[in-house]
Amino acid sequence: MAAALMATTAFAADPFPADLRETALATFKALPSTTRALANNPITSEKIVLGKALFFDPRVSASGVFSCNSCHNLATGGDDNLETSIGHGWQKGPRNAPTVLNAVFNIAQFWDGRAEDLKAQAKGPVQAGVEMANTPGQVIATLRSMPQYVEWFSAAFAGEADPVTFDNFAKAIEAFEATLVTPAPFDAFLNGDDAAMTSEQKQGLTLFMDKGCSSCHSGINVGGEGYYPFGLVKRPSTDVLPEKDKGRFAVTNTFDDFFVFRAAPLRNVALTAPYFHSGKVWDLKKAIAIMGTVQLGEELKEEEVELIVAFLNSLTGKVPDVAYPVLPAETTATPRPVSQILGK
Amino acid sequence: MAAALMATTAFAADPFPADLRETALATFKALPSTTRALANNPITSEKIVLGKALFFDPRVSASGVFSCNSCHNLATGGDDNLETSIGHGWQKGPRNAPTVLNAVFNIAQFWDGRAEDLKAQAKGPVQAGVEMANTPGQVIATLRSMPQYVEWFSAAFAGEADPVTFDNFAKAIEAFEATLVTPAPFDAFLNGDDAAMTSEQKQGLTLFMDKGCSSCHSGINVGGEGYYPFGLVKRPSTDVLPEKDKGRFAVTNTFDDFFVFRAAPLRNVALTAPYFHSGKVWDLKKAIAIMGTVQLGEELKEEEVELIVAFLNSLTGKVPDVAYPVLPAETTATPRPVSQILGK
Repeated sequence: MAAALMATTAFAADPFPADLRETALATFKALPSTTRALANNPITSEKIVLGKALFFDPRVSASGVFSCNSCHNLATGGDDNLETSIGHGWQKGPRNAPTVLNAVFNIAQFWDGRAEDLKAQAKGPVQAGVEMANTPGQVIATLRSMPQYVEWFSAAFAGEADPVTFDNFAKAIEAFEATLVTPAPFDAFLNGDDAAMTSEQKQGLTLFMDKGCSSCHSGINVGGEGYYPFGLVKRPSTDVLPEKDKGRFAVTNTFDDFFVFRAAPLRNVALTAPYFHSGKVWDLKKAIAIMGTVQLGEELKEEEVELIVAFLNSLTGKVPDVAYPVLPAETTATPRPVSQILGK
Repeated sequence: MAAALMATTAFAADPFPADLRETALATFKALPSTTRALANNPITSEKIVLGKALFFDPRVSASGVFSCNSCHNLATGGDDNLETSIGHGWQKGPRNAPTVLNAVFNIAQFWDGRAEDLKAQAKGPVQAGVEMANTPGQVIATLRSMPQYVEWFSAAFAGEADPVTFDNFAKAIEAFEATLVTPAPFDAFLNGDDAAMTSEQKQGLTLFMDKGCSSCHSGINVGGEGYYPFGLVKRPSTDVLPEKDKGRFAVTNTFDDFFVFRAAPLRNVALTAPYFHSGKVWDLKKAIAIMGTVQLGEELKEEEVELIVAFLNSLTGKVPDVAYPVLPAETTATPRPVSQILGK
């Protein structure tokens, strides 16, 4: 009798299918409770300290203006909230900056997956002319000019004869970034806490799976695990899918990869407007409606969109505490910042 | 006998004039042990929390790229280590960004003292076309669009009918900045710890006072307390003192203020290259030599310069621990970033 009453009360307060968690666990995974191991890059506290300093150091850019954190700002969802990032010489990047939060769980990095992991990714923006516009040689000269950095590299890569290298720079950043994991109410729900998600969020989760969103947006990051054409059913408008950006085709040179992108990982999506690789859509509701039309061939109803937004809000997690670093002081040997744009 | 032996030992290890501390205390002051009270702006923990968020928030700039911390970076001595800062549209500012660390103790803010305090200062760069290029109205619209900011303003300015104002924005930033104080070995020495400074640093301190540097660089901030002509004895070269920047003349319209600037506060000067309002000198030794020539009319010897550098190193202090903030999430009502340069 008591058990029956409790069941009824629970049902009245928050009805959701008895198998919702089980169904969800067939598609999604909660964040792991320990930091993910990295290929060829054991994580140590020394490496994390160094990687954090490098992540926040604007002197790794040619101009001295941009750090990794400029475009992957831990204060604002791990991205920069711009359509596309502004870089060296006020140039605009070609694609929206993805969040660094939980990025370690993506199958590969960048919208087209052209970097196999975060250490490969970390080498990209530093050298991109429209981003940091620097060279590996200049980055290493900068870091070697500061004794504190040399000490930190020696501690993080103990036993190496020449620890201050561009490879180790990237490995240290990867180690720090691997700690940027944001447990969310959705994880608590998957881990057994019925009360972690609201009724609307659970309805949204059900809908997200029933409509087919989770065919592409699955796994630990609710996305980020596979590559799919943007415009599976219907080609999006050219402002949202500009014709000149062919997506993964540029990586594979395979005709099938025209307009193919890595499915966006949706953790913290409520914090990372604007949306899509073009960054042209600022309203999450509008982004969901577009996905319904172009990927599922279905005009989602207003209330369906709102329930999906509710579910996506349950993916907003707790950003780890990060003490703002005090960086090594420059010396007279430190290369000076260069603000000119190449060729100008 | 024991006392005599001890005195001899101390003398041999670290000889310095018995009255050095007393002499120094007639010219300098140690940092106070509590946060300085602000005029018309009582400091509360709520105001500091809000002010820290605002200080780190790039969305107070029109482009969404620059925060206060971009040019006054707490990771790199409270400044940006650039000749002059890069701002909106990659424009270059007219003068070197001064450090925000200990700035609360300066007689007034900016190189020409045109802002009477930090809350007046905070309103400047936000509106400067070459810096953040924003307007008070747009800043307030941005902050009001985020419920978390409205809550924080309400808590920090409790009892005010309309707490989210540009004045309160500036007051909160001032309250946070007032906490950015960096106790240094020099303070410990002034407070009675003989061992806090090395023998070279004490010799440098003696020289700094004997040569007359401390005539202008005095007080809590070892500078920042008064206005003096740059080129008291001899006009510096035009690369270091560009002719078009007339200094405090632009503030007072007084002929006597031609090329007059606030004496640079020297705390953490070892971290804040390049030097002078023009930012044209990268080597602290060279900056000291120039000051000898143009302010004191004396060619300082190499070893004298080195002792003064040693003293200045004793002004490098401990930056307070700052937890990197997680900022309020944008809403669909948040004004979008504008990266265009006005008139282009």
